[in-house]
Amino acid sequence: MVAPTDRVLVAVSGGKDSLALWDLLVRLGYDVDGLYVGLGIGEYSDVSGEYARSFASARGVKLLEVDLRDEYGFDVPTGAKAARRVPCSACGLSKRHLFDKAALDGGYDVVATGHNLDDEAAVLFGNVLRWNTEYLARQLPVLPERAGFPRKVKPLVRLAERETAAYCVLRGIDYQVEECPMAAGNRHLGYKESLNLLEERSPGTKSAFYSEYLDKASHLFVAAQAEGPDALRVCTSCGAPTSGDVCAFCRLVEKAVK
Amino acid sequence: MVAPTDRVLVAVSGGKDSLALWDLLVRLGYDVDGLYVGLGIGEYSDVSGEYARSFASARGVKLLEVDLRDEYGFDVPTGAKAARRVPCSACGLSKRHLFDKAALDGGYDVVATGHNLDDEAAVLFGNVLRWNTEYLARQLPVLPERAGFPRKVKPLVRLAERETAAYCVLRGIDYQVEECPMAAGNRHLGYKESLNLLEERSPGTKSAFYSEYLDKASHLFVAAQAEGPDALRVCTSCGAPTSGDVCAFCRLVEKAVK
Repeated sequence: MVAPTDRVLVAVSGGKDSLALWDLLVRLGYDVDGLYVGLGIGEYSDVSGEYARSFASARGVKLLEVDLRDEYGFDVPTGAKAARRVPCSACGLSKRHLFDKAALDGGYDVVATGHNLDDEAAVLFGNVLRWNTEYLARQLPVLPERAGFPRKVKPLVRLAERETAAYCVLRGIDYQVEECPMAAGNRHLGYKESLNLLEERSPGTKSAFYSEYLDKASHLFVAAQAEGPDALRVCTSCGAPTSGDVCAFCRLVEKAVK
Repeated sequence: MVAPTDRVLVAVSGGKDSLALWDLLVRLGYDVDGLYVGLGIGEYSDVSGEYARSFASARGVKLLEVDLRDEYGFDVPTGAKAARRVPCSACGLSKRHLFDKAALDGGYDVVATGHNLDDEAAVLFGNVLRWNTEYLARQLPVLPERAGFPRKVKPLVRLAERETAAYCVLRGIDYQVEECPMAAGNRHLGYKESLNLLEERSPGTKSAFYSEYLDKASHLFVAAQAEGPDALRVCTSCGAPTSGDVCAFCRLVEKAVK
């Protein structure tokens, strides 16, 4: 996932997973900075940012910050409404775009995110329920670098969320405990709940579902995707890779600030 | 699925799906007989058999019968215990074997089963949770004939179980309403329950899950399976196709009656 000489950028939300990951990478001796994206989700974002900053200053590590409102003139709630997207979709695409951009601008080799097993299994579940073959092909713990995208890795992907929470407690890491208020009732949480019910009846279900996907099926979706035309172009507005003329983030910005 | 001149054998359990299917195929003018397998599951099997026989005699159609106990010396409860299999596994493999055998012996072109959307989606769910790629490759509404196996079709696969129940009510078909007592608490019912919860929140989930699988992913599993060695041999005991020396049914019989 990460070579000893790599410069690593950790995507930091202020929650348990991203702070545990940052802490782990620092302890393992990697050259690693954090990036916090201010999403403008009221008090939730204010508090999350505080946790990220406290962690950085207590440990003397470097935290980059990008604020959606200051730098792009919108926040997730208003942007999502203007673009008629569900908040989690507007938020996810903004974060992906800004992490990629910060990594490329800052000369980082790899973006590391704190996705845990519960997250990944729930995302996999949603992708499988609709057989989103394109997303399935990209749902891997390591996505190699390609034109316009840094390498992306998810080092915590085999740990349950209770394990990263326990790690934070043991390491004395304070983190945002609240769920994002915009996520309440979203599909992802529904999938997590379904998987938790199955896990209760049949312990090991979640881990088997995810790891057997990687071992036995992911290569089929990757290969099928590789056969298709790789139609990535350059966004005419910001230069990021896109399948259209203008990338999804620039389209969101345009709708959000007009 | 079925050509006008095909001789069809319907797998009849005495429940709503198989009787609805039989009724439909007769009404559509196909040359179709039924096959009921006596599984020896106490009163449940006795009553199921009665529904199958009543349907056949009321309509003047031909019902073949195979009784596990009379012809092979065991029933599902004792066989499963002796072979240390869960009952549903012993039952399923016995039925598949006996339907195949009856179709080949009787010169039928195709075996039709009453699997509905709820069944198929739940089976798909179970196969996906463990990424049983071999089973996924075979989970199709039509399996073409191959050496030792008749063609197999599932004509009701796009109908929900409530729809086949409604069909039976409208057509005045009496059927076994009880669930098999051996199935209580099995995984399949758990998967059905999970999917029903998701369906409640997001109507259409179940149908999309199954039909998108057929449209967008099944070919990947079929192709991957076709690449592997097709190591089917002939059972040294009964002549059925098998991947080992002796087929799973003959091994079950041997354990059950020794």
